[in-house]
Amino acid sequence: MGLDEEGTAPVQPLGDMPNQEFRVNGEWVLDWIARYLEDPDRYPVLAPVSPGEIRARLPAEAPEKGEPMETILRDYEDLILPGITHWNHPAFFAYFSITGSGPGILGEMLASALNVNAMVWRSSPAGTELEEVTAAWLRDLLGLPHSFEGVINDTASSSSLYAMAAAREAKLPQASATGLSGFPRGRFYASDQAHSSIDKAAITLGFGREGLKRVASDETFRLRPDALRAAIEEDLEAGIQPLGIVATLGTTSTTSVDPIQEVASVAEEFRLWLHVDAAYGGPAAMVPELRPLFSGWERADSIVVNPHKWLFTPIDCSVLYVRDPEQLKRAFSLTPDYLKTSEEGVARNLMDYGQALGRRFRALKLWFVLRYFGAEGIRKRILQHVEMARELAAWVDREPDWERVAPVPFSTVVFRFAPEGSAGEDQDRWNAAIMDRVNATGEVFLSHTVLRGRLCLRIALGNLKTRRAHLEKSWQLLREAAGGLAPSAPGD
Amino acid sequence: MGLDEEGTAPVQPLGDMPNQEFRVNGEWVLDWIARYLEDPDRYPVLAPVSPGEIRARLPAEAPEKGEPMETILRDYEDLILPGITHWNHPAFFAYFSITGSGPGILGEMLASALNVNAMVWRSSPAGTELEEVTAAWLRDLLGLPHSFEGVINDTASSSSLYAMAAAREAKLPQASATGLSGFPRGRFYASDQAHSSIDKAAITLGFGREGLKRVASDETFRLRPDALRAAIEEDLEAGIQPLGIVATLGTTSTTSVDPIQEVASVAEEFRLWLHVDAAYGGPAAMVPELRPLFSGWERADSIVVNPHKWLFTPIDCSVLYVRDPEQLKRAFSLTPDYLKTSEEGVARNLMDYGQALGRRFRALKLWFVLRYFGAEGIRKRILQHVEMARELAAWVDREPDWERVAPVPFSTVVFRFAPEGSAGEDQDRWNAAIMDRVNATGEVFLSHTVLRGRLCLRIALGNLKTRRAHLEKSWQLLREAAGGLAPSAPGD
Repeated sequence: MGLDEEGTAPVQPLGDMPNQEFRVNGEWVLDWIARYLEDPDRYPVLAPVSPGEIRARLPAEAPEKGEPMETILRDYEDLILPGITHWNHPAFFAYFSITGSGPGILGEMLASALNVNAMVWRSSPAGTELEEVTAAWLRDLLGLPHSFEGVINDTASSSSLYAMAAAREAKLPQASATGLSGFPRGRFYASDQAHSSIDKAAITLGFGREGLKRVASDETFRLRPDALRAAIEEDLEAGIQPLGIVATLGTTSTTSVDPIQEVASVAEEFRLWLHVDAAYGGPAAMVPELRPLFSGWERADSIVVNPHKWLFTPIDCSVLYVRDPEQLKRAFSLTPDYLKTSEEGVARNLMDYGQALGRRFRALKLWFVLRYFGAEGIRKRILQHVEMARELAAWVDREPDWERVAPVPFSTVVFRFAPEGSAGEDQDRWNAAIMDRVNATGEVFLSHTVLRGRLCLRIALGNLKTRRAHLEKSWQLLREAAGGLAPSAPGD
Repeated sequence: MGLDEEGTAPVQPLGDMPNQEFRVNGEWVLDWIARYLEDPDRYPVLAPVSPGEIRARLPAEAPEKGEPMETILRDYEDLILPGITHWNHPAFFAYFSITGSGPGILGEMLASALNVNAMVWRSSPAGTELEEVTAAWLRDLLGLPHSFEGVINDTASSSSLYAMAAAREAKLPQASATGLSGFPRGRFYASDQAHSSIDKAAITLGFGREGLKRVASDETFRLRPDALRAAIEEDLEAGIQPLGIVATLGTTSTTSVDPIQEVASVAEEFRLWLHVDAAYGGPAAMVPELRPLFSGWERADSIVVNPHKWLFTPIDCSVLYVRDPEQLKRAFSLTPDYLKTSEEGVARNLMDYGQALGRRFRALKLWFVLRYFGAEGIRKRILQHVEMARELAAWVDREPDWERVAPVPFSTVVFRFAPEGSAGEDQDRWNAAIMDRVNATGEVFLSHTVLRGRLCLRIALGNLKTRRAHLEKSWQLLREAAGGLAPSAPGD
């Protein structure tokens, strides 16, 4: 720049990392990422460390003097990496398997350099409008009508919180002025399989843990519409104010699919907000073969779909669709003087649609992912995960000592080691032991859930690098780990 | 891998972007970022586009077939970049000026490739423990006692929401079961200068817009402790339940500093939760010369400091410190079966401390920033911003037609064109015109606020590339824009 060589008392700029240094270290980081993406199999999936081990390796205080980036990057490899559980590993089958894909990572790199905050239109016109465009692209790919508009949040926890705040606003509009104090108790409804973020949202919104009624699910873990209706009627009689229903298309434990048409009818009958949690399952609506699972979700008031789950976008990226964005805005919009801009009324200020004011440029990575893979490429990849899951399900079904616990509508298989004649308590202990043994190999990472009181194992597929061989290996490790556990169980 | 060449019906993996393609495009992206960081002055700070212009350039539908990354990156430059308001530009003086620094960007690159979700310890031991370590490093640098523990959230909006949820839990513990319905109305207190996220949090938590009482500030925009005490006493008499006080150290409009010792005494007197919003100002506590501004904040129950504001860390990164993490946990902890792990009780599961379950690996970039610049380097850089702001303030003070509206405790100067004898309404119109003219040059971007009903201009410093020359140019542009506006005003 050389602009400040004149004038009295020139202030010497201390500045950012010198450009050449950024380039050299950037090359190292880029090469590291490329090598990592080429072969994440080199690393144990589940970090083989104990609580406190990573912390103990780090100094207790920040350095007084700056350190060379080379030293810091070496420490990243030596001290941090051993404590990383590798979500981007092809044999990460725990929780929901995700992908930080190549195009998504490139998008994040650019977004972090631009460092824009798309809180109001003017603070990031492209950030705001690309968010509108990518959300609309995805909406159309999902087969949702144009009446839905999308905003991008960090996580489904936030998206569902915002949707439920809009439901509160719709039912108790006066409460946004004076609060819930003078109003009857309010209640949301969801199945016993709904995500814990729905409970958290009910608590955050001031309805308490009892502000969510967990309704019984059927034998395949789907919300029972008759139980839903009964719960609402019971509350109405007791003077409790029903607020909204949360249906899940792809629950966390088993990826069960609530009967959305019937649930929507109940919501319409009682004029309740219907929020659909399709955070994981949603992207599958792009696939014609799977679209029927979603039939009726267009009747919802709001839907959350997370591209950072099964749409190859690095976390975080959660799209909240609402049929009446004004309703969401009424729940959150407040514009202080320092954020008033001349574009109000002509342009959308994204801060008005949720709690968070600061907003990363999350649309960029999603745009990269949608364009790079294309609709066809995404459909094929999702379908491939579903096919692999079905194959695994068939393997489980063939083994007499193993039991598949739930249907496989998407890409997650839930099962357990349950030799005939053995006690449920023993089976629980065995399955826990199997999971620990298999995870300790570092070759695969899977997680568990509890269904009808019994511990079950889950294998969730969603990483783009996962191949059939990873599944075969996992299935082999599982059977080996079960060997000798039960008297009647065959060895490997 | 070549692992799937055997077996019947092999599934052809479609996979991620091929590695060589990632490398080639990664090189392009890295080079683009390096060039961008070298000279962001090339771009107009404020995007010279109208609402809808970017959207109109983009196709209405996602592509059916995947596209080459090269095409997408070209479109990024041609279609997206013209709509970017450059937060990483050295003459971005609007809102709060921030820096996506070199080491921070390198940290984000690695985090996006690892793509970990640090929701429970096991899902990211290093993510969890590095968050504990960096939050503790920063706490010590800020001079806060060890009784404070930190968690990293996305934004201060979330951090303050969580702190206020903990305050609610402390005062109305039964409400987390049954909700606020049966309880008296609750109230938080903050000055008329507090951030809008505090109103939003009160609304979200179920207390409504009236759940936040805005207390008068004094002539330098600091919360008046006498007015605070009066407001609390009035509410107590009226049967309204006081919940907590939010003090701000560095308000958004003027960076005024609430008298924290006196406010803390009021909080203690009434046994109310004291939350300190130091999202912007906080990092200045690292500087010995500025530490006295914070004297007393250690008496708070919770404090939010945003490294993504004045600590050179790419957004988003907000640290919430709480003196009693168990109180925060009580407000949010709920562990569903599928997230129960064997490390409970020995390790911290970060999901328990807020609404969001999904958590990016935000500690990595903060660790890079703290180590690369070092405590000394950060202090010097912050102090340099303060010195530049003081110099600008002196320039404003020297000009008779301009008025400085507030003290400059940090790095933000608030001022207005106010020729003697002119009417306030005319001044408002002139200042709006000056801002628009200056921003239209593309050489600088500043924003406004309204204080005591009068429109004021703000210049906020916080970017590492900002030099005195950028300020000089801005001041010149401002005076030029004012030239000829008022009869008594001198030209440039």
